[in-house]
Amino acid sequence: MGLKEELVTALDADRVVTGADERRRHGTDEGWHSAAAPDIVVLPRDSEEAAAIVKLCAKHGAPIVPFGAGTSLEGHVAALDGGVSIDTAQMNRILRLSVEDMDVTVQAGVTRRQLDERLRPEGVFFSVDPGADATIGGMAATGASGTTSVRYGTMRENVISLTVVTADGEIVRTRSRARKSSAGYDLTRLFVGSEGTLGLITEVTLRVQPTPEAMTAATAAFPTLDAAVDTAIEVLAHAIPVARMELADEVQIDAVNQHFELDLDVAPTLFFEFHGNAAETEAQAAETQGIAEAHGVLGFKWTADEAERRALWHARHGAYEAGRALRPGSQGFTTDACVPISALAETIKQTKEDLDASGLIAPIVGHVGDGNFHLAILVDPDDPEELQRAVDLNDRLVRRAIAADGTCTGEHGVGYGKSAFLELEHGAAAVEMMRAIKTALDPSGLFNPGKVASRIQE
Amino acid sequence: MGLKEELVTALDADRVVTGADERRRHGTDEGWHSAAAPDIVVLPRDSEEAAAIVKLCAKHGAPIVPFGAGTSLEGHVAALDGGVSIDTAQMNRILRLSVEDMDVTVQAGVTRRQLDERLRPEGVFFSVDPGADATIGGMAATGASGTTSVRYGTMRENVISLTVVTADGEIVRTRSRARKSSAGYDLTRLFVGSEGTLGLITEVTLRVQPTPEAMTAATAAFPTLDAAVDTAIEVLAHAIPVARMELADEVQIDAVNQHFELDLDVAPTLFFEFHGNAAETEAQAAETQGIAEAHGVLGFKWTADEAERRALWHARHGAYEAGRALRPGSQGFTTDACVPISALAETIKQTKEDLDASGLIAPIVGHVGDGNFHLAILVDPDDPEELQRAVDLNDRLVRRAIAADGTCTGEHGVGYGKSAFLELEHGAAAVEMMRAIKTALDPSGLFNPGKVASRIQE
Ligand SMILES: Cc1cc2nc3c(=O)[nH]c(=O)nc-3n(C[C@H](O)[C@H](O)[C@H](O)COP(=O)(O)OP(=O)(O)OC[C@H]3O[C@@H](n4cnc5c(N)ncnc54)[C@H](O)[C@@H]3O)c2cc1C
Ligand SMILES: Cc1cc2nc3c(=O)[nH]c(=O)nc-3n(C[C@H](O)[C@H](O)[C@H](O)COP(=O)(O)OP(=O)(O)OC[C@H]3O[C@@H](n4cnc5c(N)ncnc54)[C@H](O)[C@@H]3O)c2cc1C
Repeated sequence: MGLKEELVTALDADRVVTGADERRRHGTDEGWHSAAAPDIVVLPRDSEEAAAIVKLCAKHGAPIVPFGAGTSLEGHVAALDGGVSIDTAQMNRILRLSVEDMDVTVQAGVTRRQLDERLRPEGVFFSVDPGADATIGGMAATGASGTTSVRYGTMRENVISLTVVTADGEIVRTRSRARKSSAGYDLTRLFVGSEGTLGLITEVTLRVQPTPEAMTAATAAFPTLDAAVDTAIEVLAHAIPVARMELADEVQIDAVNQHFELDLDVAPTLFFEFHGNAAETEAQAAETQGIAEAHGVLGFKWTADEAERRALWHARHGAYEAGRALRPGSQGFTTDACVPISALAETIKQTKEDLDASGLIAPIVGHVGDGNFHLAILVDPDDPEELQRAVDLNDRLVRRAIAADGTCTGEHGVGYGKSAFLELEHGAAAVEMMRAIKTALDPSGLFNPGKVASRIQE
Repeated sequence: MGLKEELVTALDADRVVTGADERRRHGTDEGWHSAAAPDIVVLPRDSEEAAAIVKLCAKHGAPIVPFGAGTSLEGHVAALDGGVSIDTAQMNRILRLSVEDMDVTVQAGVTRRQLDERLRPEGVFFSVDPGADATIGGMAATGASGTTSVRYGTMRENVISLTVVTADGEIVRTRSRARKSSAGYDLTRLFVGSEGTLGLITEVTLRVQPTPEAMTAATAAFPTLDAAVDTAIEVLAHAIPVARMELADEVQIDAVNQHFELDLDVAPTLFFEFHGNAAETEAQAAETQGIAEAHGVLGFKWTADEAERRALWHARHGAYEAGRALRPGSQGFTTDACVPISALAETIKQTKEDLDASGLIAPIVGHVGDGNFHLAILVDPDDPEELQRAVDLNDRLVRRAIAADGTCTGEHGVGYGKSAFLELEHGAAAVEMMRAIKTALDPSGLFNPGKVASRIQE
């Protein structure tokens, strides 16, 4: 029997898909890199089915590309060497929740929003929010983070344990459910950020957080980028536990003003969210305001009202949409540099000069507390020369970030779009270590060939 | 030339040590496992010297055992197969500090106390405190944690980047200094907790925290263990950011009463520390007191006074010393189980019953917020039958913890003392993955043979 026939025998026929549209969709992400369709798409329901699929693929030498929601940005899900896309959409059960232990176990295909709905009535929440409605498995696989990571951490700090299917088709749990452990190598964190190259994640145990009694929000517009970043640095130095602290530059603010008909000060702006009880959030906001004023803030708006809070943050949440509306028909080419915060203002300034010289348009938003910022370069997808200018701009940005002891990707991951930067960032010996680990765990290069540090097998 | 002669040529003669006492000391830790002396002890001063040593050891096929302060507990530093102990004592420079970025880079041999002294005048502190004055390299290598981990995390959350010397003698930095990164496999976390089996850590970049404006402390004695643990669970559920929350059982309290001539209630007791500004720490304590009262607390003492704070915590900080004084001449046999907090009270209760039946004495202290607790079993080192009873008690405790989805070691690590439990805890396939990683990064088994999941090469 061929691979497809064996897969149909192992699953139902309707969970083995070969239609062109579905294949194309599964090889396409949200970024600008070329897509590559897999030959077959399969939809397992649990770890056992997934293990059976992996064994069949191994037997037939067919590459495997895990697929979550396809919202990644660096060509992560492109089936560069063909093969089988394992879509986790039907692994979508929430398996257990313990409010006492503040943890939850889900199948990999559960989405952030689905989890959110399940947790809300229990008075707990899951903190990592990458904006897109990604799957928990995909978020673990990319080491995702988001606007709340400044307080609650990234996936690395919030994944307790994983169940994975290895290249042998073995089902392995990486760790117990204890809050901490020193029992051997940290397989959990090795799989977090491995982007489907070391195995398939089928279950994830996550930390959850108690829902804060009160949430308040604030915005602060500054005369200069330096003033905004210095304010952020001082907020952290004062141990103010900001739940979110986001930066938008004046181009981004202009875009949201136009798109949503707002009249925000067109200036570098910080968006804050505070979590705690009413007194705590008010005290946090007051202390933050004091710091902002010392840095010459143009206007500091604060609110405890839920509707007003959403309105204040609307400009930040709609940033991507508003940015793209600056140039209808354009596609967003998103950068992801991350630097030590002391180098952030200078790195952004140099990048803006470079951007101006390039003739491209790109609003900037940033997870300022982490030193991570994104340019959404608005490119005409049908203009290869313009795309090349964006590629070059990003290349210089990456080099600038690495020179500042930063990274080419703070949260989006490597895919194949950033493979070429790994050696520049880590050095050849470190990349060789990554390759050695890949070879040790996946000797025949079954999982997501051509991604991260792995090469397509000849 | 023999290995020793080549080492002397590479370093100075006085940093290549072969005296029996020094060799013995370097093969001995603070636990009860049999020691094993290395053949040679060397003291490099930087990564380059360390790399030269590793290359010479590789050339001569001599095993390498990294050595920090030797405070580990599971036979970690025993040179089971002889070879060279690389002592990091002279790699003791603090290389850089950035208060803006809240990070510091140190050589591996810097001790916690040394770092503390350097940081204190800068208004920042390093949060991980394992009690013993360990080296930062040793703490990274064991994945250490301590009383403050409930709020600030373990070494896994606080190591940003490592410089390591690999088995090839290459110097590799695992990661940039950016606050977060998704640029390839997480080599940093792979080395954290690797216990000297994957390479030598020579430099560590750590997160530091702003020193809190105010610190207050409280103690609370409870009628039952359940009441104490339920209070701890509720404190976490209310998102009260306790900086420390430690449990001591009535045997431990009795021991400190006797040893320090105190008159604490002989009952399960929680020790708290709160960090923030004056108003915050007072509010945290008041909320905690309310929760404790709802659980029938016998007495809740709170203080903002520095001297009184130290007095309140004296009983906890002197726990180990007071415990051993219960039985002069005895040695402490320390267990390290860690379970989901919902299983903590039951696990401790069953363990206390088992302890009573065994005829052994063991005070219990615990990092209750993490579900981690230690029995300090007081054994007569010259009584093999008694030692065996302690071994059996620990064996049953480990099985109980694993059955509760916990771990055999919450923080001390595996060494060779807990190797046998890894398969029970993780399953054979997971341990095989660990071995595959070990073989990939250290094919000839140079680094710390016989530890964690590695076998002595035949
Ligand atoms: C508008 C927009 C905003 C974004 N903002 C952020 C942000 O703020 N922060 C951030 O971190 N990211 C952000 N992203 C990127 C993206 O949302 C994240 O990378 C997300 O984690 C991807 O999850 P996914 O389920 O879509 O994974 P996919 O795109 O389906 O897959 C991503 C990678 O993970 C692998 N993978 C997926 N599932 C599994 C599994 N079960 N086991 C093993 N490997 C698997 C795939 O093979 C692939 O390599 C954004 C994307 C968009 C479009
Ligand atoms: C009284 C007492 C209380 C303790 N309490 C705690 C606690 O609360 N929490 C906790 O986590 N631990 C605790 N411990 C255990 C111990 O302090 C920790 O494991 C500590 O991290 C060991 O550090 P060290 O410098 O002494 O390392 P060592 O004992 O010298 O070495 C430990 C291991 O790390 C390796 N190693 C050391 N340095 C390096 C390096 N530079 N590169 C690579 N590998 C290296 C060694 O080969 C060995 O395997 C306690 C110990 C005692 C005696």
